[in-house]
Amino acid sequence: MKVATHHLRCTECATVIGKDEVSSNFRCPLCNGLYEVVYPWTNATAGPESRLPNPSALRWLWQERRSSSMAIDQSGVWRFRDLLPIVDDLEKVVTLREGNTPFYDLPRCAKAAGIDWLLAKHQGMNPTGSFKDTGMTAALSVAAQRGFEWVACASTGNTSAAMAAYAARAGLRSIVFIPEGKIAWGKLSQSMDYGALTIQLKTDFDGCVKILGELVKQFPIYLLNSVNPYRLEGQKTPAFELVEQMEWQVPEHVIVPGGNLANSSALAKGFAEMHELGLIPRIPKISIIQAEGANPLYRSLQENGGEQLTPVVANTRATAIRIGNPASWRKAVNALQTTGGWCEQVSEQEIALAKAEIGAEGVGCEPASAVTLAGLKKLVAQGKITAEERVVLILTGHTLKDSAYTIEYHRNELFSDAEKAELSVSEQSRHAALRKPPIVLEADPGLVLRTLESHMNQPQPA
Amino acid sequence: MKVATHHLRCTECATVIGKDEVSSNFRCPLCNGLYEVVYPWTNATAGPESRLPNPSALRWLWQERRSSSMAIDQSGVWRFRDLLPIVDDLEKVVTLREGNTPFYDLPRCAKAAGIDWLLAKHQGMNPTGSFKDTGMTAALSVAAQRGFEWVACASTGNTSAAMAAYAARAGLRSIVFIPEGKIAWGKLSQSMDYGALTIQLKTDFDGCVKILGELVKQFPIYLLNSVNPYRLEGQKTPAFELVEQMEWQVPEHVIVPGGNLANSSALAKGFAEMHELGLIPRIPKISIIQAEGANPLYRSLQENGGEQLTPVVANTRATAIRIGNPASWRKAVNALQTTGGWCEQVSEQEIALAKAEIGAEGVGCEPASAVTLAGLKKLVAQGKITAEERVVLILTGHTLKDSAYTIEYHRNELFSDAEKAELSVSEQSRHAALRKPPIVLEADPGLVLRTLESHMNQPQPA
Repeated sequence: MKVATHHLRCTECATVIGKDEVSSNFRCPLCNGLYEVVYPWTNATAGPESRLPNPSALRWLWQERRSSSMAIDQSGVWRFRDLLPIVDDLEKVVTLREGNTPFYDLPRCAKAAGIDWLLAKHQGMNPTGSFKDTGMTAALSVAAQRGFEWVACASTGNTSAAMAAYAARAGLRSIVFIPEGKIAWGKLSQSMDYGALTIQLKTDFDGCVKILGELVKQFPIYLLNSVNPYRLEGQKTPAFELVEQMEWQVPEHVIVPGGNLANSSALAKGFAEMHELGLIPRIPKISIIQAEGANPLYRSLQENGGEQLTPVVANTRATAIRIGNPASWRKAVNALQTTGGWCEQVSEQEIALAKAEIGAEGVGCEPASAVTLAGLKKLVAQGKITAEERVVLILTGHTLKDSAYTIEYHRNELFSDAEKAELSVSEQSRHAALRKPPIVLEADPGLVLRTLESHMNQPQPA
Repeated sequence: MKVATHHLRCTECATVIGKDEVSSNFRCPLCNGLYEVVYPWTNATAGPESRLPNPSALRWLWQERRSSSMAIDQSGVWRFRDLLPIVDDLEKVVTLREGNTPFYDLPRCAKAAGIDWLLAKHQGMNPTGSFKDTGMTAALSVAAQRGFEWVACASTGNTSAAMAAYAARAGLRSIVFIPEGKIAWGKLSQSMDYGALTIQLKTDFDGCVKILGELVKQFPIYLLNSVNPYRLEGQKTPAFELVEQMEWQVPEHVIVPGGNLANSSALAKGFAEMHELGLIPRIPKISIIQAEGANPLYRSLQENGGEQLTPVVANTRATAIRIGNPASWRKAVNALQTTGGWCEQVSEQEIALAKAEIGAEGVGCEPASAVTLAGLKKLVAQGKITAEERVVLILTGHTLKDSAYTIEYHRNELFSDAEKAELSVSEQSRHAALRKPPIVLEADPGLVLRTLESHMNQPQPA
């Protein structure tokens, strides 16, 4: 393994700095832009020592590592380490064997969306239950290598769970800022379980980000929000995994939920690098779906073509994407423009229905992940995605992340009567067919038998 | 792949029956015993067509499959299908890419237990968050192949989550019986999410089992409790994975939680088969740990050497093992006797402390999994396990399975004042060092800075 060598480039003014020159808030001092990691092999004039193995050799190497028992080979992030040379000493990599997540076909969801074939890349099957692990293993390894003792993030819950776990693994201490009362119960429990100092601030996610920005100027704390470009280096690797799982075929569309808006650009970077290196012949369209109640990117694109973003007060039960002032919105606009994808918004009831449909395939996900299926339906209805095209949904979180949402949905307690009345008759019956309220019974065999008999005579919903 | 061929043998009276002759309750009609699956290659007099590849060839084959993209190769259960030929048509295997779970070293837990080196095989990293997935992929595949439309189980929550998910995958319908109010919230949400018919009975787990027994006599429902021997065929495969991950070294000890008591015997069967086939030179001691409030096996061994088992009324916050009348207790006694392991019991406070210690390593697990570490401490203190021996804990469920427990523990609300007063001063300070109650603050930068400063000056707990 050659020594890591990379630079940071501002994604707005293109200024390049050395990896040790970045400020504590990971913002460009000239234009306040965000950085991305650039490597010598993305520079055509670099010398031969910077060249990578050829595409066939890389594919072979990555496949061979799958049958190795070494921790960094078992990791679905570090298995692709040739394309993320960000740490000098691989012995110091902090890993929980993240990545290598399953790829599921969703035939009934495909039918509901009106397409022939649909795949889900389930990033909720990572160790802490969300896609954030792939980024955290990368950025936490950098923090450990640079000798930080403390790390911190603001979070709607998934980032904090991942950071707390990886920090604990590395023996570092972590501080989590979360908006009080606005994150899912499962996620709150994780930061405590993994030993983080958890601070619930009486504000929203965007308010947490602001306070954390003050902090990292005054204490030697390594910032692990997604402005940290190393997070995105890890989060680009599911793009590699995904095409590898498709035997190096490229889908026409990849659909991601849109919250703080870093994940779409991370995946776009992964596809772009593979394309540049000759690993794939073209890149898929990446589309971003937001909740109607937390739709600043959608609005920006509608109102000014993505030139400016006006923050919104975010409100959605899909807490993972309850973000009104997303840090990486310019990167997301760029990802949409370079790949040719779209941005859509979906309602709370559309999210709930899509989540139930994914669950009924035996897969399950958290509400924010389900925006992908809800958005797909709209893109198909608009003719932007056609029936025979291959679509991959990125499911970002495990169903166990937000159990309360699932229970309320199936008990029919998630929406008010007024909200339910807004649905069409066919939408109402679709919800009714999927809803599975638990039945409470006395432990009387006769009673149980009679109850079951009536249920077993009802047809299976399509 | 040769056609599946196997028989069922009663583990008590040794009567062998054909695979299609078993009754709906999976009990021997002669002695009420439970069955195990037997294969021709366990019979020395079988013809050459029944022979397996030699050990080196098997190891090579299993390793090669890890780099395949086929679903049955990506599964950490079906990758070992040579040792579980239970379905005729591999196309019909129902899989969620279970298994291939990570192996974590736990250096701080090792120190707390007084040994040099400790590993955890984290079965909570399976798709539905528990070890039950490895068994369910096997038994559900058999159900699907045999043409059943309905499957059912009684459960403390993990089995039902797994069954519901795999049934949904296969397009089968499922019925779940759970004790009302006595399972963790996360698990209840899963059976609804995956579309099962969830029936909460006003009784305990053992009462649910009894009613289900009536049901399967009257309806064409395939029983998926762990009396179903195919469940155990899947659950033996983590033994294969574990030694493969240790480069075919065998640990001295494997420690499992004891609830319905099928898992210990499944793992023992896996080790025994590997030993018989020459894959490993010896088998590890398998020890079983129960909660004090649900300790029928522990009592039986103390009182009559495991000859008889008197059911208890089970009571523990480790809901996954809240079982007073375990179905597979005779199999478990056999596993202890043939491997030379021990059975221990641990208190509620010992469980809570062990769970916090595992969490603080960045790994996390549900309470029932933590009995393994709590039990290890006792076995070390008794001199049964020595410092230099290699120990593997089987963590059975993900921390997200029971978020409420974690939150109550860290808020110091899990135990009454009277219970806490029973602890020694050193135990109290150990709990205090690990407890991470969330801090609620106004979003005032000055206040947050001052609060953090005081926390950052406190030392890291050992």
